[in-house]
Amino acid sequence: MFGMNRQESADSPLDRRSVLKGSLAASAAAAVSSLASTATASPATTRSDSPASAKVILFQGDSITDAGRDRKRQGTNDSRSLGRGYPAFVAADLLSEKPAHGYQIHNRGISGNKVPDLKKRWEADCLQLKPEVLSILIGVNDIWHKLNGRYDGTVEDYEKGYHDLLVETQAALPETTIVICEPFVLRCGAVNDKWFPEFDQRREAARSIADSMGLLLVPFQEMFDKACADVPASYWAGDGVHPTLAGHALMAAAWRKVVGI
Amino acid sequence: MFGMNRQESADSPLDRRSVLKGSLAASAAAAVSSLASTATASPATTRSDSPASAKVILFQGDSITDAGRDRKRQGTNDSRSLGRGYPAFVAADLLSEKPAHGYQIHNRGISGNKVPDLKKRWEADCLQLKPEVLSILIGVNDIWHKLNGRYDGTVEDYEKGYHDLLVETQAALPETTIVICEPFVLRCGAVNDKWFPEFDQRREAARSIADSMGLLLVPFQEMFDKACADVPASYWAGDGVHPTLAGHALMAAAWRKVVGI
Repeated sequence: MFGMNRQESADSPLDRRSVLKGSLAASAAAAVSSLASTATASPATTRSDSPASAKVILFQGDSITDAGRDRKRQGTNDSRSLGRGYPAFVAADLLSEKPAHGYQIHNRGISGNKVPDLKKRWEADCLQLKPEVLSILIGVNDIWHKLNGRYDGTVEDYEKGYHDLLVETQAALPETTIVICEPFVLRCGAVNDKWFPEFDQRREAARSIADSMGLLLVPFQEMFDKACADVPASYWAGDGVHPTLAGHALMAAAWRKVVGI
Repeated sequence: MFGMNRQESADSPLDRRSVLKGSLAASAAAAVSSLASTATASPATTRSDSPASAKVILFQGDSITDAGRDRKRQGTNDSRSLGRGYPAFVAADLLSEKPAHGYQIHNRGISGNKVPDLKKRWEADCLQLKPEVLSILIGVNDIWHKLNGRYDGTVEDYEKGYHDLLVETQAALPETTIVICEPFVLRCGAVNDKWFPEFDQRREAARSIADSMGLLLVPFQEMFDKACADVPASYWAGDGVHPTLAGHALMAAAWRKVVGI
């Protein structure tokens, strides 16, 4: 039954559509629907296989990815290792929908990390894990810590550091599908006017890197902006930075749509 | 856009089908597909509204429901209050799919609980919360603690205690949709031949109560038995009792299918 075609898959009883009796909110629906038109297309990725065939998936980033995981656990696929965020939701769906696929899903996000922090631990926490799909969400601390006076990296530092890290990654893991998750903030909580326009410049830097290197991009900012049409921004991220349960679930759906897993 | 009809809902981009490029495992798909034919039908429930319109949802039970939640937090809808199990997965989907619906989703499962433990805390942890949908998963500790010599309740004690609790609940909350989650074990880890046939008798007691009282039943045992066709039982519950991330995700999908939310 493995390898059943798209139509058979669509008719499966595990299909979430079949259990959804209520209506979907326009804003949330629009938030995810927009992704197809805005995400960087995948043809430029170097992997010959599609991400759908990948077994080893690694989520990298800061606290949004970390999401309360138990960092003492280095395992794959279990809820304590994966945390309470979008990596766990993606993993839960994949592991329950395709139990015999052989997924090994890692989370190595660490709260507070910026690009230079990823650089320091990249060999052990990325390259050695040999991910077939590598997802990275990094950037909000690069500006937040600067606003707090704890860091002095510029937009240019962010773009160059991130780009160099990805060049190094592509050299070491030429077959890996790399997924750039766009940094995002919502206008509430800790996020005020001081964040702008620099935050948008950093977002644009991440998008530009994805575009120039032919990497997949998950446009989380646009998704959240649209999702805020019907509910306050704090519904999706109380402090404007860290998603709520609902926000993480929306991210997971968007991630899967863009990556095509 | 709220209240859009079934067809429009089905076409929504938030539909998980649209993001599922891979194939679904036969066993997992069959596990959930079987539910429609085995679940107790809903017409006998006393609520006039369908569960899909409910805002206040309460998950009650033992460690499987508790799933590592922070019991000091009494809030709704957030990941720490809801834990890492099926209640969080159900909540994540509902909260992201229908952000403006006004859900208040509680988890009050407590590790180690048996029916008598629920009875002691029912006023504060259930009746006062006035759930519109009340989901209960209880029974595995009623036998497990007996096998360990820490409890002496019989199958009859379980059935009478559970039934009486539900009669009390229906009297206090006549409009509430009550969902009985069938107790389940998988043949691995801590679960050995000593559990049988008594465990099956307790399962049958829970099913019988749901049937006689016209309550919804989520047949988790059948679901997991079918899901074990392609992977070892430990894939779904390492110790035979507590589901893995994949097991919880499967439970959440089954719960939504039966409850119709």
